[in-house]
Amino acid sequence: MSKKAIFYHAGCPVCVAAEANLAQAIDTSRYEVEIVHLGSQSSRISEAESVGVKSVPALVLEGVPFHINFGANLSDLK
Amino acid sequence: MSKKAIFYHAGCPVCVAAEANLAQAIDTSRYEVEIVHLGSQSSRISEAESVGVKSVPALVLEGVPFHINFGANLSDLK
Repeated sequence: MSKKAIFYHAGCPVCVAAEANLAQAIDTSRYEVEIVHLGSQSSRISEAESVGVKSVPALVLEGVPFHINFGANLSDLK
Repeated sequence: MSKKAIFYHAGCPVCVAAEANLAQAIDTSRYEVEIVHLGSQSSRISEAESVGVKSVPALVLEGVPFHINFGANLSDLK
């Protein structure tokens, strides 16, 4: 069964670079990778917050958040 | 031919979590993953700095640095 990886971003330049490089490097034979744009899917901001995401881009692996560089605060996307 | 992924850390708790979760999620069929402990391999700090690493843990994919959460500044490891 695949483990869950969710990459949250907001379309910012830092986000785009992280998606193009880091998110695509994840092993899709072990992880189901979902890409979520919080700018266009703002209904999912609370979901991201609930696992501890503070800024984007962020990668959540099996519920553990990793903030990658810094693009924007989650609070600025509301 | 494998692409190069280098995970720089310094043994800090934030580093250990990032290695256990994020570094191990990389697709090793496409990336050759190297783990470098800058505390014990301080000779490689300048190499990390040269590609733009400012803090650990950091993952460098094909020369592009991604800072993951925040453990320690590179300058504090010297």
